[in-house]
Amino acid sequence: MVNWRAAHRLITHSSNRFFHHRRNPSSNISSLLCSASVFRRSSLDENVRELLPNVGIQRGVQHKCYGSLAGLVQRNPAFSTLNNEDIRYFEGILGDKNVIQDEEKLIAANTDWLHKYKGSSKLLLQPRSTQEVSQILKYCNSRCLAVVPQGGNTGLVGGSVPVFDEVIISLSSINNIISFDKVSGILVCEAGCILENLTTFLDNEGFIMPLDLGAKGSCQIGGNVSTNAGGLRLLRYGSLHGNILGIEAVLADGTVLNMLKTLRKDNTGYDLKHLFIGSEGSLGIVTKVSILTPPKLSSMNVAFLACKDYASCQKLLQEAKRKLGEILSAFEFLDSQSMNLVLNHLEGTRNPFPTSIHNFYVLIETTGSDESSDQQKLESLLLRSLENELISDGVLAQDINQASSFWRLREGISEALTRAGAVYKYDLSIPVEMMYNLIEEMRVRLGDAATVLGFGHLGDGNLHLNISAPQYDDKILAQIEPFVYEWTSKHNGSVSAEHGLGLMKANEIFYSKTRETVQVMASIKNLLDPHHILNPYKVLPHSLSS
Amino acid sequence: MVNWRAAHRLITHSSNRFFHHRRNPSSNISSLLCSASVFRRSSLDENVRELLPNVGIQRGVQHKCYGSLAGLVQRNPAFSTLNNEDIRYFEGILGDKNVIQDEEKLIAANTDWLHKYKGSSKLLLQPRSTQEVSQILKYCNSRCLAVVPQGGNTGLVGGSVPVFDEVIISLSSINNIISFDKVSGILVCEAGCILENLTTFLDNEGFIMPLDLGAKGSCQIGGNVSTNAGGLRLLRYGSLHGNILGIEAVLADGTVLNMLKTLRKDNTGYDLKHLFIGSEGSLGIVTKVSILTPPKLSSMNVAFLACKDYASCQKLLQEAKRKLGEILSAFEFLDSQSMNLVLNHLEGTRNPFPTSIHNFYVLIETTGSDESSDQQKLESLLLRSLENELISDGVLAQDINQASSFWRLREGISEALTRAGAVYKYDLSIPVEMMYNLIEEMRVRLGDAATVLGFGHLGDGNLHLNISAPQYDDKILAQIEPFVYEWTSKHNGSVSAEHGLGLMKANEIFYSKTRETVQVMASIKNLLDPHHILNPYKVLPHSLSS
Repeated sequence: MVNWRAAHRLITHSSNRFFHHRRNPSSNISSLLCSASVFRRSSLDENVRELLPNVGIQRGVQHKCYGSLAGLVQRNPAFSTLNNEDIRYFEGILGDKNVIQDEEKLIAANTDWLHKYKGSSKLLLQPRSTQEVSQILKYCNSRCLAVVPQGGNTGLVGGSVPVFDEVIISLSSINNIISFDKVSGILVCEAGCILENLTTFLDNEGFIMPLDLGAKGSCQIGGNVSTNAGGLRLLRYGSLHGNILGIEAVLADGTVLNMLKTLRKDNTGYDLKHLFIGSEGSLGIVTKVSILTPPKLSSMNVAFLACKDYASCQKLLQEAKRKLGEILSAFEFLDSQSMNLVLNHLEGTRNPFPTSIHNFYVLIETTGSDESSDQQKLESLLLRSLENELISDGVLAQDINQASSFWRLREGISEALTRAGAVYKYDLSIPVEMMYNLIEEMRVRLGDAATVLGFGHLGDGNLHLNISAPQYDDKILAQIEPFVYEWTSKHNGSVSAEHGLGLMKANEIFYSKTRETVQVMASIKNLLDPHHILNPYKVLPHSLSS
Repeated sequence: MVNWRAAHRLITHSSNRFFHHRRNPSSNISSLLCSASVFRRSSLDENVRELLPNVGIQRGVQHKCYGSLAGLVQRNPAFSTLNNEDIRYFEGILGDKNVIQDEEKLIAANTDWLHKYKGSSKLLLQPRSTQEVSQILKYCNSRCLAVVPQGGNTGLVGGSVPVFDEVIISLSSINNIISFDKVSGILVCEAGCILENLTTFLDNEGFIMPLDLGAKGSCQIGGNVSTNAGGLRLLRYGSLHGNILGIEAVLADGTVLNMLKTLRKDNTGYDLKHLFIGSEGSLGIVTKVSILTPPKLSSMNVAFLACKDYASCQKLLQEAKRKLGEILSAFEFLDSQSMNLVLNHLEGTRNPFPTSIHNFYVLIETTGSDESSDQQKLESLLLRSLENELISDGVLAQDINQASSFWRLREGISEALTRAGAVYKYDLSIPVEMMYNLIEEMRVRLGDAATVLGFGHLGDGNLHLNISAPQYDDKILAQIEPFVYEWTSKHNGSVSAEHGLGLMKANEIFYSKTRETVQVMASIKNLLDPHHILNPYKVLPHSLSS
């Protein structure tokens, strides 16, 4: 027990409140902002609003100006251009105040969260019901007017903003909670419900949402479903394909598909809802969802550990899954390069092991229903892992502040990266066994030109590969791409773990999907949206979708 | 604590072995056999083989002869008839011994597990690779020869046998385990792997399959995926839509769709694998799967409880989910009619509460990683529930034999029903709150003519409604159908919780799915299988699929 620093019980607290405080939205920022004039959105939660200026005005922050990728695609000439008759039609359906042409509001709706993509739509529609969405789409389909569905507009790949002049259909006003069954834990609600509002509602009922994101103060459940959002609870509760029990979606021609079942078992034909989960609004607009929610658990523990090598991190994951089993809720890792960066650039961070140098660090979180037994399980795992030398050192958080400080080391990396200089960011899924090989190969490729960092959700096989350099340099970029995509593809990985393809990576789909599979996707797109009016230029490669 | 009978620790044991012994395959028998000459299949596991004769030769067992529903559908005249040239072609691809025309073998492959459906195929093909499946389908598609994919042929709705002369494509010879990643728990294997073999393989690695079925000794993972098999672990580990990470499938025209990812997160385009999960081989033939497997846990506890009313069962479920949370692995219920039937007809069964009469019984099972804490949690829940009068009485199994005897009370119901006389069986998903209303309404409808029993997987919202009568009587049937389907539909339920539609319920799809949704299903069928050669007459209503 020489190496064992502390083994204190983490004070029991509302996991909801805990998550709210410890999460740092900067970890979601996948690239730097376009300019120092930082875009603010009023609906963003306080944490996010506080962060953005820090990123923007921080001295020494490197800015790389990404132009809109619209330059790389041509506006589909088959699409009509909006005219006054169209406006009058929409006003007739929705009433004047829900047909928005106000420039300021349009600027916000045309611009993505990171200020990286900017469309030029002249019209934002705010339907209040599925029926109104249906009427809008039926009309747009008949007129060949392209549309972009928009929820909280917190996506990171340019999926939720127009590329050209697409009509923006906001789901924000369709935001009622329809029902909640306390026995089964099944919630039915409309697409525009903000994730955090649902979390708060469920908290009062003794349940939690099976997903949780940094953007929860703004993102909407319809957008979460449409992008198959991953987030922090995936390790424990699985993906939305397992948790979403039913949806209602409107097809391009206005047909309403009511698949809003509230059943755990329903084997009556093809389970079409899965087509709409993760298709980023390109096959239909999700208007309602039914979702299985887990009961809220009372106990949480967080440990921060040091490992000598990546193999030990892997073995520790294996042990944690076996020994913690049902209470394991997070297993995150970072390498020493990531740790050093955080310690050097983020005020208030502290190395839990100040006198030693370690190569890797692991954060383990448990949530369960029995404080003392959960703590015992975790302590027992950690003691065994010390004895087996899977870990070199470790601390168990003794209160919520200490737990937050451990999470800050992991979640502060992205923010630290923006302060360190230029950064090239990649969000990849790679089989756990070979995940760190990419980092090592990248270090060989880049030599002294840049610092390569590896961290991420080891429990989910989700690597954040980040490359930090003094400044942006096309020679460095040429060393990284397309190598990083090719390497990921060769190792049966995914070039987009959880952010989707949107506009940003539509043409990179072949790195993760076979030609035959993409061809079937394109056929299904043609079947359900023959005029391609739904979220054009996104998801599918432009060669197939134009 | 007056009512508390026993609170003994269940001896720790291999959950795998435990499940193997306690499960009674008769619970899967959804209708009586066609004749007293019982069909045996050599590949069925010992339990199943032992059971079938019992059902068949039991004195007093009622037999209702279901003809093949083929009489209700017409052979699609667009399909070709097999000729010698076809045979020679297949022999050229597969070799003579894998092109089977032997009558005895064909009888087995033409007949379903319950001897309820019988086709007249003249040809059974046994490909050994995906490539061979592709060659077969490409040829059949060009010749317009209909095919039926067949795994373990343990389905209950006539989905896995020919209706007419379809060529049977057996996946049994494509049965290799391809890889297993001990860190992530991800298994990749071929479709023909028998579920129990996979379970055994994983047991040695310290993992379990996320699904478990009575038919596990015969059923194949490809069939499990194609039928979205539910089974006994769904409450804990969720459906296959959450656990299957990737599949390889061959389309009707021979195109191989390689979607065999081994990643927990992959948001690169439409997640097409879900179309093949549960489509019963009508969109493509699944040839490989990748599946996330949970670690094997060491501790299991079983409690058998009595409740005064259905409302208490519901509240108990709610409490169990909250207090047991992460260790709850089964929550089954039966009413007093079911209990009495079992006690009257199954030798060796014993009422755990012999001196009292109760209206409802609940079986709770936990699995976890910490024996003492798991037991404490369960005991604590039960004591609180006694105090709150959610339960009237209860016993906690003190060893594996007692646990098995509790499971026997729940799982013996189907066997007892076959001994009691005629039985009308329905497998329904209904929202938990109103589930038992159907039983009560059915009792009012039937009066003294029959005994209505309610039992099932309360934790999954899956009701087994069974109606026991002295003999089959069309007047009784007319009181049950279509009322039972209409009632289920009106309450947003499903007429097939986990068995699929197959041939049996293809025309009942509209009771659970809207016309618009079924129309999209039919469009997708037309897109992927334009000649409708894949498992014809199944899943989709005959009006849309012919």
